[in-house]
Amino acid sequence: MLAEFDLIRRYFMSSQEASTASNGVTLGCGDDATLLMPQAGQQLAVSVDTSVVNVHFPREAPAFAVGHRALAVALSDLAAMGAKSRWCLMALTFDQREFVDDEATHLWLADYARGFHTLCQQHATTLVGGDVTSGALSIGVTVMGEVPVGEALTRSGAQPGDLVAVTGALGGGAGGLALWNKGERELAHPLLRRYLLPEPRLAAGLALRGLATAAMDISDGLMADLAHLREASQVGAVIDVAALPLADELESTLGREAALKAALSGGDDYELLVTLHADDIAKAQQRLASLGLTLTVIGHCCETLGISASDQSDLSSYVNGYAGWQHFSGDTP
Amino acid sequence: MLAEFDLIRRYFMSSQEASTASNGVTLGCGDDATLLMPQAGQQLAVSVDTSVVNVHFPREAPAFAVGHRALAVALSDLAAMGAKSRWCLMALTFDQREFVDDEATHLWLADYARGFHTLCQQHATTLVGGDVTSGALSIGVTVMGEVPVGEALTRSGAQPGDLVAVTGALGGGAGGLALWNKGERELAHPLLRRYLLPEPRLAAGLALRGLATAAMDISDGLMADLAHLREASQVGAVIDVAALPLADELESTLGREAALKAALSGGDDYELLVTLHADDIAKAQQRLASLGLTLTVIGHCCETLGISASDQSDLSSYVNGYAGWQHFSGDTP
Repeated sequence: MLAEFDLIRRYFMSSQEASTASNGVTLGCGDDATLLMPQAGQQLAVSVDTSVVNVHFPREAPAFAVGHRALAVALSDLAAMGAKSRWCLMALTFDQREFVDDEATHLWLADYARGFHTLCQQHATTLVGGDVTSGALSIGVTVMGEVPVGEALTRSGAQPGDLVAVTGALGGGAGGLALWNKGERELAHPLLRRYLLPEPRLAAGLALRGLATAAMDISDGLMADLAHLREASQVGAVIDVAALPLADELESTLGREAALKAALSGGDDYELLVTLHADDIAKAQQRLASLGLTLTVIGHCCETLGISASDQSDLSSYVNGYAGWQHFSGDTP
Repeated sequence: MLAEFDLIRRYFMSSQEASTASNGVTLGCGDDATLLMPQAGQQLAVSVDTSVVNVHFPREAPAFAVGHRALAVALSDLAAMGAKSRWCLMALTFDQREFVDDEATHLWLADYARGFHTLCQQHATTLVGGDVTSGALSIGVTVMGEVPVGEALTRSGAQPGDLVAVTGALGGGAGGLALWNKGERELAHPLLRRYLLPEPRLAAGLALRGLATAAMDISDGLMADLAHLREASQVGAVIDVAALPLADELESTLGREAALKAALSGGDDYELLVTLHADDIAKAQQRLASLGLTLTVIGHCCETLGISASDQSDLSSYVNGYAGWQHFSGDTP
């Protein structure tokens, strides 16, 4: 069995060294703590997410995807704040007894580290701390980003009249999970990619600074997360179910109604949910288009607390008085 | 089953609110990320530690101790850097099926949170992020501290001729574990306290700034951790086994030889291991005495890499050419 120190050095430190000096890291991994130099005039945005085997990802998921996904879901929280990602810490717990032999363990770890590091590099994020322990497979990722004082996006700024919009497409996370459960293993499948290799919308978060009145990421599903935003902003929302942007191949795979339900409450999409003044929507869409991303208006905020559907779709009753509301207010819907 | 959001709010947010405004927290828990305002001229010291049930603590350990200990071992890394602790994030994974009923779960969580918060308050540390997931019991704690630029203690500054010293007493962690395994459950027992409720030496770390040439905390055991320090500083060390400060009741509980072995390699002590110029030792001891702590000289650094015992104790051969060295240098001892 590899000692923790060797393991961290072998899989997680070498590829980081090059990027360390250029990213505010005064003293890198290998001491009791890492020393970082924050930039003046910036606030730190910090968040932690744990990914547990068979809860957040299947045990048979490719190791590359496990590493990518654990970091992606944490970075998604920085995206939702409009923060620039800078540093992360990773606590990996895994049980060597789960692996057939040492060769398999090494292959898994190398592939896992490659998934984690590749996403680090894509988002100029330096791994500055790690811990490796023995136990059921689980990954805790702490992310640290920076945002100029006063410019962070929060959940609480939405006003009645603001438009509600989402980046990219919805339902892919749930659609991909459904496919995985049916035995699909081809990572090139667009839905499986959405589920196992989600892309944190960091560039979109930065682009929406100064435009979005509120923002959060969609991890639990649009309806549940919109309930958090409505609660924090003390507004209601009217959603146009027919306007929901559906992930590629979602409708052809699941059928129309299941596809819409996946988009409404499936979760694991890691798109951004934002509110904006109607005047700003064209500018926001332009900025995101330059990043190759869409921003789709799916409704608007209103004064009457709660949520309802604006159209007469079959799912109107599914949306109207969504039970999530009750959970937070204690009121009947 | 409690929703994650409710659970975090119920057990972990309420008691934090009072301390939030005064500790650089611009936006507290409840959004996608927390916003912090670091102080100008300070470096951030960050570290993560995971505590896994039946690996780092017994399943039957009191919940208060589980919460205290998970934070304590993480804070100990900040102490070793001479950093002032400011913030922490906690990722709690626990399996509700492990608990007999809902009442037991609530009691456990409340007691766990009390242990965690009490130590937070003792060290002016604000919980600024959390995640609660379902799975085998495990706690990941990320700690964030601050230290003036250039003043951090590291592992790499020891020079031949420096004295080697430790705070407090050694062997209590291993002694407490041995007692626990024999059925002792009385937390007032000094050894059990050392094992289950270790005190991170944050005040000592601050007091040793400007005096210690190198520092680290003793988590894996004196010999193993001294090997890390020797490797980082490229020095050897000569240890006086007879000078090791033993934890209260350790010798009477385990006998002389087992007590010394516990002090040399038992681990879980979370004392600080430091090196200092001989001229500075009296001043350092004075500063620590004012904190109610001892600082005991246990040896000195030398040019010849490796480790040896200076005395003729029965354990000299146990120390001489400690195998840990081989592990890091690839050389034969």
